[in-house]
Formats: sequence, C-alpha cells, structure tokens
Amino acid sequence: MQAEIIAVGTEILLGQITDTNSPLVARELVALDIDTHFQTVVGDNEERLLSALEIASQRADLIITIGGLGPTPDDLSKQTVAKFVDQNLAVNQAAMDKIEAWHAETGRPMAENNRLQALYLAAGIALPNEPGFAVGSFYKNPNGPDVLLLPGPPWELEPMLLKYAVPLLQQQYHHEGTLLSRVLRFYGIGESRLVTKLATLIDQQTNPTMAPYAKAHEVTLRLTAHAVDEANATKLLDEMEAQVLAIVGEYFYAYGDDSSLVETVGKLLIDGGVTISAAESLTAGMFQSTLADVMGISAVFPGGFVTYAPTAKEQLVGVSPATVDQYGVVSEQTAKAMAAGTREKLDTDIAISFTGVASGELEGQPAGTVWIGLATRNRASEAYLYHFGSDRQRNRERAVMAGLDIVRRKLLQLPMVKNI
Amino acid sequence: MQAEIIAVGTEILLGQITDTNSPLVARELVALDIDTHFQTVVGDNEERLLSALEIASQRADLIITIGGLGPTPDDLSKQTVAKFVDQNLAVNQAAMDKIEAWHAETGRPMAENNRLQALYLAAGIALPNEPGFAVGSFYKNPNGPDVLLLPGPPWELEPMLLKYAVPLLQQQYHHEGTLLSRVLRFYGIGESRLVTKLATLIDQQTNPTMAPYAKAHEVTLRLTAHAVDEANATKLLDEMEAQVLAIVGEYFYAYGDDSSLVETVGKLLIDGGVTISAAESLTAGMFQSTLADVMGISAVFPGGFVTYAPTAKEQLVGVSPATVDQYGVVSEQTAKAMAAGTREKLDTDIAISFTGVASGELEGQPAGTVWIGLATRNRASEAYLYHFGSDRQRNRERAVMAGLDIVRRKLLQLPMVKNI
Repeated sequence: MQAEIIAVGTEILLGQITDTNSPLVARELVALDIDTHFQTVVGDNEERLLSALEIASQRADLIITIGGLGPTPDDLSKQTVAKFVDQNLAVNQAAMDKIEAWHAETGRPMAENNRLQALYLAAGIALPNEPGFAVGSFYKNPNGPDVLLLPGPPWELEPMLLKYAVPLLQQQYHHEGTLLSRVLRFYGIGESRLVTKLATLIDQQTNPTMAPYAKAHEVTLRLTAHAVDEANATKLLDEMEAQVLAIVGEYFYAYGDDSSLVETVGKLLIDGGVTISAAESLTAGMFQSTLADVMGISAVFPGGFVTYAPTAKEQLVGVSPATVDQYGVVSEQTAKAMAAGTREKLDTDIAISFTGVASGELEGQPAGTVWIGLATRNRASEAYLYHFGSDRQRNRERAVMAGLDIVRRKLLQLPMVKNI
Repeated sequence: MQAEIIAVGTEILLGQITDTNSPLVARELVALDIDTHFQTVVGDNEERLLSALEIASQRADLIITIGGLGPTPDDLSKQTVAKFVDQNLAVNQAAMDKIEAWHAETGRPMAENNRLQALYLAAGIALPNEPGFAVGSFYKNPNGPDVLLLPGPPWELEPMLLKYAVPLLQQQYHHEGTLLSRVLRFYGIGESRLVTKLATLIDQQTNPTMAPYAKAHEVTLRLTAHAVDEANATKLLDEMEAQVLAIVGEYFYAYGDDSSLVETVGKLLIDGGVTISAAESLTAGMFQSTLADVMGISAVFPGGFVTYAPTAKEQLVGVSPATVDQYGVVSEQTAKAMAAGTREKLDTDIAISFTGVASGELEGQPAGTVWIGLATRNRASEAYLYHFGSDRQRNRERAVMAGLDIVRRKLLQLPMVKNI
C-alpha cells in the first residue's frame, strides 16, 4: 500500500509558508502502516496539478491532496481532482447549511464562491470541516488511485485528519496485524558513530526496522516492529533493543519522542527533590534557561549566577583572584571554585559551573576548551574537561548538554563518559 | 528559467522532521527571479531518487537537492546525482583537511565513511560547509539540467546557501543587468499586520519585488530590484524603502540578513561603551545567554543573576520581602527593585529585569503577563508591562526580544512601542 501526498499552494512554492501539514499527515500514514515514497508540492495551477496527479497515480494507490478547497479563484483542487478521476462534484447539504447559517448570523453578504466550499466528490464521502467551511472528500476509485482531499489551513486539516480521515483510512485499508514503534534516545555519541557501531544490525534489519535520526546534540533510534498482535510486536522490539543496548547502552538515556535530555534531568531532580543552582561563564545563562523549560522545576531550582567577567566570578560566587591568577579563568580550579561558591551561596544540594573558550583563544587555550564543575553537599568538588569545536554558539549548546548529562549521571551514580 | 527542489530524507517522508530548508531555498530562488513549479520529497533510496531526478529533468533547468551528503550509509545524494549526470566524484582537499584536523584535535577515531563528506562533483564546483564537513556541489550540465547539491542540516544549509550558492547562481544565470536585494528588519509588528499595512505597495509590486518573511519574533522584508546597473537598482531600492518606512518606520530597526535584534543591541552597547547586567526570573538566563551570542560583548557585560525563586530575588539582588508581599512577584515594583538592585550590585550603566507568568497562573495573573524593569544610573527605574500568550517557551522568548528592544530604544532615545 503506497500513498503520495500532494501539497497544493503557490505560497509553499514561494517559501512564504512552511508546510507543516505534510509531516502531520505523514506521521498518521506511518501509524496506519501505509508507505509513502514521495511527496510533491505544486502551485495553484490546474495544468500542473493534473500533471502531479498523473505522476502520483503511476506510483501510489492513494493520493492525498492538501489545500485548495477554499472559496477563492486560486482554490482549484476539488475541481481538478474531480476532472482527474472523472467524477462529478455535488453539494454537501450539511456544509451548505453551515455556510448559509454563518452568513445569516453575522449579517455578511454571501459571495457565490462561498458555496463552492460545500462541494465534494459526489460518488465519494464528504468529510466535515468543524472549525471551517470547506468539506473534504474521499473517493474509492475503481479505475485508479483512491483520492483524499484535505483542507490547507492547519487548524482545519488537523481535526479533519484525526477525527474523520484516519478512521476512514483505517476502515478502508484495514490491515492485518499490529505495527508498533519504540524510540530510543542517546546522548554523547554522534549519528555517524552510532550508525557505524550498529552497522551490522542496521544492515540485517527487516523486522523491526531501525531508523537513526540526529536531533540537536542528541540521536534517536526508532525501532518499528510488525507482528500479528501487540504482544508479539513488543517481543520483537524488546529483543532488538537488547541487541542495540549491548553495543551502545552507555549512551542511552531515555525512551520516547518527547523525553529530551533536559526533560529527563529535570524529572530526576524534581522526583528526587534534589535542589540545583548554577554559575555560568561560557554559557551565560543558557544552562539555567534550558533547565527552566521543564515544567515544575521551580520546586528545586532557586536560581544562580551569570559570571561572565572574572570580576563577577570573584564578586558573585567568591572565586579568589589568586585562583584565577594562578590557574586561569578556564581551569579545573576555577570551575570547582565557581560550583562550590554557588552551592554555598544558594544552599542547594548540587551546583554546576561552566567556564570555557567559546570562540577565538583565551589564556592560550583554543576555542572549544570547556571545564564543567560540579559541587555536592559534603563532598569534594569535581570538574570535567571537554574539547568541542570552533563554533561559538554550538560550543555553548554542547556545554549545556554535557552539563545536563553530568547531572544525570551523578544522580543515577553512573560513570561519566569521555569524548562527548 | 525553472528550478526544482528535491528534498532527500526518509525522516521527512515519515514526518519525523518538518522540512524548513525548501522554503528557505525557495525564497532565495524568488529573489533570484528563478521560477519553481514543483518541489519533491524523496526518501534515502537510490532508485527513487533517480526517478525523482528523471522527472525533475523533464520540467526544470536547475535541480537543487537538499540532504543526503553526510557520512552514513543512508546518505546517497552525491553518488546518485553523480550517476544521474554521469560525472565522477573527487575529493575536495580543503574539506578533507578539515575533517582530518578535527578528528586529530578532538582525539576521536575517524571512521572511513567520514571521508565521503569531502567528495564533490569533480567537473563542477565544491561549496564550502563552514559549520560542518559535507561539501556542496554545483555542476553546469551541458547535457541536461544543472545540479546544485546542498546539505540537510539547516545550520549547514543556510550559510552554504547564502554565502556560496546564491552568489554562484546569480553569476551563472544573471548575465544581463544587476539584481540587487536589500533586507529591512522589523520588530514589534507581526507578519500579517505588516502585510496588511503594506497591502497597496505589495499589490502594486513589480520592480522592486517585496517578500515579507516571519522569523522568530521578527519580520524581514526583502526588496529585490532588477536594473541595468547597480546605481539604478540602488535608486529603485531607495525609493521603495522610503515608501515602506513612511508606513511602518517605527518598527524598523536594521538592514541585512545577519543584523538580528540582539546583534543590533550588542553593537550599540559595545560601540557606546555602555555596561549592562540583568536579573532574570521568568526568562531564567535566556536574556543574558542571548546577549552573550554577540562577539565582544564581554567588554560591557560582566554578568548577572537568575532569580527564579522569590528567596533568590531577596538574597541575590536585594528585593525586599515587603515589596514582594505587598505587590507580588509579578509586579511593576518587583521588576523595578530587581533591576535597581542588580545595577547597584554590579555597578553597570544599565540593568534589566524580567518577571512574569510563563504558563498557568500566578498571583491571579494569567500566563503571558510580563513586567520588564530597567534601571539606569542617576535616574528612577522604569518598568514595562506586556501581555503575551499562553505558550511557556514562546512567552520567555518574546520577553527576551521585548527586553532587547527596550534597551535599544533607551540607548537611541526612541519612544517605546506598545502592543508588541
């Protein structure tokens, strides 16, 4: 079963808007176990839409058009698809009643073209548009690919898709068995190293399939299993996960699409009632700002310092000028003193500090040299050294991620990982 | 002149990521006066990419592929396009040196597939990838459409596109006359309001053309003039700019693709030798971290505070408990006291403070209620009230932008703008 998405709209071709509809539809197709090999974007032009439909019909069993159902002269999808599948359009009375009622209620004059929004493929099924007026259509085509017509405004597309189109597709293409996915999240290993380490598994993949994906400073691996039922699909996923973690388990930190590293660390802190503060030089507040993304973090995070200048390190968190003079601003000793001073000032269970060279050179050390300090109650402070790259912004982001991972490993009493 | 964009990546087909590259490339093609009638998305699959290239070659003079230049076995674009245009790949020595140097510097083992990133179309031109490793390629094809290969990660694509690909395309396809662009940047007005206010100008546009584009919390307007020479193109741009600024001039703050609001404010502070510090509750370090993006800011920015909990406001910047008790954490008085206390502690020329409701409700005030305080030497502190929306992360980002604009208007002695 192959589907193809055709997004219709000159404003997409011109880059005036970003098409967020196609990814949404694509994710629902994945969940329905319907493959997609191509997506197309075409402008509001009958001839070119017909040509896109013609090409799609060579490679797909279901064509989904998005957009072009509205009342303006630009909106040509319904008429063009009707022509393509050689079917008539008819008025959907419920939609027409809604359009007429709204105009009567608001006292607005109704332009004739507003009625066009109530048209659907007569031999097919009309899909209600709850927040809008333009109905969708589904037509099971005995002579070619089936067609599904969805509206372009995302706030109209999403409810029509989820409430009406997905159940309809499920019913039409009812699939035997179950498709189950699991996302594994890794930090501290790049996509290419992950793929190299898992090369044998990836080459042999059939069921479950494995899809690595590089997010900002993290990598996810999606395993998707196909089986007769959920229990069997889960068993396949469990077995594959065990093989993956045997190879790269030290970098694994969470499951799921939404469990980013900061969410994972925030949850550990909140659930454990572990209070945290920070002193940031290199990162200048980015660690604390990132941590504050986590809902409920205020229970364990009173605040901290941005100690950008050496004087601020001394004045705000009590790093002695002698330490800076003797060892430098970017040093193990300064990182430890920043963390220890911050922890004491704010009386938190742990405190973290960041000092490093974002770009250029400092104290003879190259860009990317970063010390992260960690202070805990009743223990000697620690500090960890990193060598990142030359990009200023990326160095700061990578330092924040490394700091989050240090906190995570400390809380879980896991060994630290080198070569991040 | 017809171009076609082919975005390559199974993760796009599966809806795991939203393709923001194609809109960016599309906008640059518009500015270059190159038409696009179709865009295609295809997975990481040689056969299907070849078929997409074949179809595109029937309808375009230039094919732009995005993605698939990386080091993993999934990355097939270069090899596949080389096969399609029947040309060899060769090593770009500069890229190879960079890859080897990075691995040597960071002490990471270099997997053999990393070398693939240095390959480009030997008969064409290699395009440097400044933040990354995978070089781009442009090949002027005597036997079919020209091809341009760009990388998939947006932070790699954007600089390669703007710095190398666009000038190259301009030189290749615009022998006659001069095409000149000017970007105007606006803050404090949304894209739809800007477009509404400029509707008459936009409807009449022919030369220069006008392309509005919404960036995160800013709007840019690109004017592109086509004329016999640069002087005449400049004259056309000057005239159009004057008409635009007569309507929305109060929101205009800078020219150019790189002059973001923070860069503009950072430059004003550095050039004026005006020192700044901050106390952040709502934004939790995001203002300071954003400010630290600016190269050279350390000369005027010693640091500041993250005062997330009420106790931190008291302990770190001396907001009296009576002020918080009487007026609340999210109040004009607390914002002013945070700014004044911070300015005194760090002895800076100005200090800014942020307190507000990121999400949910606080002290009976709805999400999006934000007070920004500003303290200056020898003057009474001020505070400004904003009502943003309900999204936690966006509220914090919008507060940072509003704070930057407050500093800019203060430094330039411009009136503050309401209704941001």
